[in-house]
Amino acid sequence: MQFHHNGFKAGDPHRAEADPGARHDPGAVPSHVDVLIVGCGPAGLTLAAQLAAFPDIRTCIVEQKEGPLELGQADGIACRTMEMFEAFNFSERVMKEACWISEVTFWKPDPQDPGKVMRHGRVQDTEDGLSEFPHVVLNQARVHDFYLELMRDSPSRLEPHYSRRFVDLAVSGSAADYPVEVRLERTDADGRKRLETVRARYVVGCDGARSGVRKSMGRHLAGDSANQAWGVMDLLALTDFPDIRYKSVVQSGSGNLLVIPREGGYLVRLYVEMDKLADDERVSSRGITLDKLVAAAQRILHPYTLDVKEVPWWSVYEIGQRICDKYDDVPAGEVARSPRVFIAGDACHTHSPKAGQGMNVSMQDTFNLGWKLAAVLRRQCGPELLHTYSAERQAVAQELIDFDRQWARMFSDRPREGEDSGSGGVDPKAFQDYFERHGRFTAGMGTHYGVSKIRGESTHQSLATGFVVGTRFHSAPVIRVSDAKPFQLGHAGKADGRWRMYAFAGAEDDACDGKGIRALCSFLETSDASPFRRYARPGQDVDAVFDLRAIFQQPHAAIAIESLPALLLPRKGRYGLRDYEKVFSPDLKNGPDIFDLRGVDRAKGALIVVRPDQYVAHVLPLEAHQQLADFFAGFMSCDRARLP
Amino acid sequence: MQFHHNGFKAGDPHRAEADPGARHDPGAVPSHVDVLIVGCGPAGLTLAAQLAAFPDIRTCIVEQKEGPLELGQADGIACRTMEMFEAFNFSERVMKEACWISEVTFWKPDPQDPGKVMRHGRVQDTEDGLSEFPHVVLNQARVHDFYLELMRDSPSRLEPHYSRRFVDLAVSGSAADYPVEVRLERTDADGRKRLETVRARYVVGCDGARSGVRKSMGRHLAGDSANQAWGVMDLLALTDFPDIRYKSVVQSGSGNLLVIPREGGYLVRLYVEMDKLADDERVSSRGITLDKLVAAAQRILHPYTLDVKEVPWWSVYEIGQRICDKYDDVPAGEVARSPRVFIAGDACHTHSPKAGQGMNVSMQDTFNLGWKLAAVLRRQCGPELLHTYSAERQAVAQELIDFDRQWARMFSDRPREGEDSGSGGVDPKAFQDYFERHGRFTAGMGTHYGVSKIRGESTHQSLATGFVVGTRFHSAPVIRVSDAKPFQLGHAGKADGRWRMYAFAGAEDDACDGKGIRALCSFLETSDASPFRRYARPGQDVDAVFDLRAIFQQPHAAIAIESLPALLLPRKGRYGLRDYEKVFSPDLKNGPDIFDLRGVDRAKGALIVVRPDQYVAHVLPLEAHQQLADFFAGFMSCDRARLP
Repeated sequence: MQFHHNGFKAGDPHRAEADPGARHDPGAVPSHVDVLIVGCGPAGLTLAAQLAAFPDIRTCIVEQKEGPLELGQADGIACRTMEMFEAFNFSERVMKEACWISEVTFWKPDPQDPGKVMRHGRVQDTEDGLSEFPHVVLNQARVHDFYLELMRDSPSRLEPHYSRRFVDLAVSGSAADYPVEVRLERTDADGRKRLETVRARYVVGCDGARSGVRKSMGRHLAGDSANQAWGVMDLLALTDFPDIRYKSVVQSGSGNLLVIPREGGYLVRLYVEMDKLADDERVSSRGITLDKLVAAAQRILHPYTLDVKEVPWWSVYEIGQRICDKYDDVPAGEVARSPRVFIAGDACHTHSPKAGQGMNVSMQDTFNLGWKLAAVLRRQCGPELLHTYSAERQAVAQELIDFDRQWARMFSDRPREGEDSGSGGVDPKAFQDYFERHGRFTAGMGTHYGVSKIRGESTHQSLATGFVVGTRFHSAPVIRVSDAKPFQLGHAGKADGRWRMYAFAGAEDDACDGKGIRALCSFLETSDASPFRRYARPGQDVDAVFDLRAIFQQPHAAIAIESLPALLLPRKGRYGLRDYEKVFSPDLKNGPDIFDLRGVDRAKGALIVVRPDQYVAHVLPLEAHQQLADFFAGFMSCDRARLP
Repeated sequence: MQFHHNGFKAGDPHRAEADPGARHDPGAVPSHVDVLIVGCGPAGLTLAAQLAAFPDIRTCIVEQKEGPLELGQADGIACRTMEMFEAFNFSERVMKEACWISEVTFWKPDPQDPGKVMRHGRVQDTEDGLSEFPHVVLNQARVHDFYLELMRDSPSRLEPHYSRRFVDLAVSGSAADYPVEVRLERTDADGRKRLETVRARYVVGCDGARSGVRKSMGRHLAGDSANQAWGVMDLLALTDFPDIRYKSVVQSGSGNLLVIPREGGYLVRLYVEMDKLADDERVSSRGITLDKLVAAAQRILHPYTLDVKEVPWWSVYEIGQRICDKYDDVPAGEVARSPRVFIAGDACHTHSPKAGQGMNVSMQDTFNLGWKLAAVLRRQCGPELLHTYSAERQAVAQELIDFDRQWARMFSDRPREGEDSGSGGVDPKAFQDYFERHGRFTAGMGTHYGVSKIRGESTHQSLATGFVVGTRFHSAPVIRVSDAKPFQLGHAGKADGRWRMYAFAGAEDDACDGKGIRALCSFLETSDASPFRRYARPGQDVDAVFDLRAIFQQPHAAIAIESLPALLLPRKGRYGLRDYEKVFSPDLKNGPDIFDLRGVDRAKGALIVVRPDQYVAHVLPLEAHQQLADFFAGFMSCDRARLP
């Protein structure tokens, strides 16, 4: 992390200097905001944390509950989400506090004694090299805490307004500035309720499966139910089940369960299969009690014992996969109008929790939306950019739902007995195979955005086969040239709304001749067509919109800092100090280097363009200066006006 | 980290539940304390943080300044110190915020043009495998912050009392309980001064080179001065010196300097050689100004430019190596009396800052003393244990001084010109060689405690050649059996005052037969001679004093948890929940495993006994049950009384 470049400042560098306009009045929501976020779940907080980085954007986040979440809910954190947490600067805290899922074990009825379960398989949870981060499990409340702390320490000093229930909203096309009027019902400490009104430029409903924002847009979740009740409970328990600290899938003759070990070394979550439901029957009708959940778990785990000491949280639910067909307020096909209201997270998709996807997909929803809203509000892009949110994220959720339906079906099916496929049920081996095949999906790496204005064609994919256009930028180790520090290249991608350009040099290119890296820098520094020049604002640092990094093939000691182009040693901040963190060499000490790991063409090099949400937007030849310029011209705006 | 074992608790697990007796009254120091620490520098805060873990010990830490340090002072953090920070649970925060020192570069006059400096060498800063942590650089004030936060979040909720100047102390042998009376001068907000009196069981002077506590014991620092003035300054500057982000040693015809890059990517510290001083001349007599420092740095760096934009902190000092002959109040040879007053850190040793040792050695001083004071106060050990503090730490400091004197001499010498050794001066190559040879020393790994009651003979060293008795336990990667988590074994060693026993199993030993690991566990669980039984207190967890861990040679999936001895799955906390974090397998995926890395005898295995300060106390055969018992009987006490 960088700090002190605008002068030495004592104290915690994570705490940004407050913007002069930053203020939080817990007593009242502001009357006019740029973005109103409804709901303080993972989707809402990811968006709020993203927007809090921009003090020139006025954001308000409201929540129906009286205060922060303390208990329960989701707990799975996919590798992809950890990569995003790194962008938000708190991955190391999650790594430390969370429970790591390294392997998954599979249990089935013992063929010799079908009343007992036995372990029949064990697989690595995440394939080697898929991410530099592990798959972990941590109470959703703690994820909230990290976001809330980040928001409090941001230049905006953003804090939620609690005890506000969304009532309704109206979009009035004529009011160009703040076209969305939202009514909130506020509950005072004494229980009195009254209405508050907020006018917003944009409203984002992160208000869960029963989303009021969704309803106000006239949209709904469609889908089906597996008519299967499940229970979930967080336990402190004594057991002789040996895999209680593994993610374990237990299929028994008397039902199925899933063990999710939890943070702190003692807590464990069990998902327990309960009753089959009738068509359209809600789980609440069954009156399933905690005692019944515990009894079912004990039955399934037989011959192992389960002695429950404390149950901090439990719940029952029915499995269903439902999805909204569009995530904004613009009718399908109506492209001329730009969206004003969005939904994200459970408000647009629900699914069974067992693929461990819910919280992850929800946060990725708003990580996708956040930078787009910021770019439009800060006049970097026109509002038509906002159409890409629903287009990109709805497709991802649909894929997830399809995957999840299959997974949940297999999960709820009874295990097939013996080798006879005629006996019905799911073959435990097939179940395990499915799990392994879909490892990338559950790790959050299944997302592959389609071609759009912000995602180029794959024409030059062969220049960097491991940086697949439309998928997330896959980090790899490098060495920073200026100080020989080992570095994960992907960690340059912070949640700051900036685009990254990773310029991989061709063989022999050390930026000293006029080709390759130097020619690219020269174009970017001097050409009128350069995105650096076209979209710059007066007074900004040169890398305020685009962050250019170069990766050479030579060892770091072979790169002469004094010969680098100025754009790779940019002068920044009020003193014009040099930023020395733009240039890298491969890590030649530990296995294959980044060029080999990511299939970068060693002869030609490659330019990888990465979006602010860490997805690869384009792969281009280093020399394709005009194509680079054209790509950004497709959605960026030269309007240099600042926010009103 | 472990939590929730005494019931689920929402919120940040780093914040311990406050002890009912915990209270901080900023208005007045307590009248009676177990330990009074004088001085809030690195030594004082390390000790305070250690003691804060024990709410049954009443600790008070006082500081002359009005509040926490914000600027300047030491910045080097050796690998060994990072290992200790891991024990205090904040290494990852330092890793993230600090500047990493990966390589050191060496500069000398260009033989073709001696008025200019040129790079002549580059070495890796820390040899591969020396530690799992890097050598880093971070403002001392931030290290203080981490300790202060840890203390505030501890069960003791310990906070410093500022604006208290140590006046004097008196030890009165007759007052058995609180024999040390200390007088403090307190400065109120309005500048009024008045005396406060504290009675303490023990007093530790961490009050710097001019230590009042040391003077009150009649001790003094002895040593010599190199009669050389140096300047140090933290800069935000623009320069074309290419190695400004490397630790760089620059020897020029017009003096020498040392570049220390600093956290945040822009700040840099320069140590600049200034005037030769006359014998007994103090640096203050020279009136060295900041302008002079900057001008000297500019001269030395020629032909490179240095354009200084901001100087957050600067200072001048003379090099001197001085040391106190004993660190406590008991005259040498007088073993019957136990010490009551100690000094630590700069109060007992000073040296030039350029070996980057000062802060590190000071913190290791009190990390050594902390657990000993706690053990005595908690009646785990008799007070004679406290003699080992001065014995162990004074020897370390003497070695450091010797090293530092040589280093500083070479540093201040002019570089030899050409190959002709007759021309005098220091050969730049020899300088670099010295630097490399002493890498272990500067990394903090030079400490090798001698044989004593708490450090066994090296008789069985051949069983584990990489765990050298008397040196710090050298961590290595393992896999936790219960959940397949990759783990650094040394990170089991937290700053909780507990002893660790790492039992490395012999080949084939899977704890299922009656030998090796199972026999050891059986002895520890059942024998009257077992330290686990002899030094246990009613109501404590079985691992409250000794923390036994087992490391098998088989892959983790080959170890059956259900067959492990109960002592390796101990039941803990109010619910008697199982602790699953005691058993490990080698990491068989990444290079040589821990048995090979640390030279553990694969046929016989080994038992490594590690002190609460992470130093190897003993290496024994797994079967040496009686020897193990005898070792602890040498200094531990069966007195089960609690603190009064």
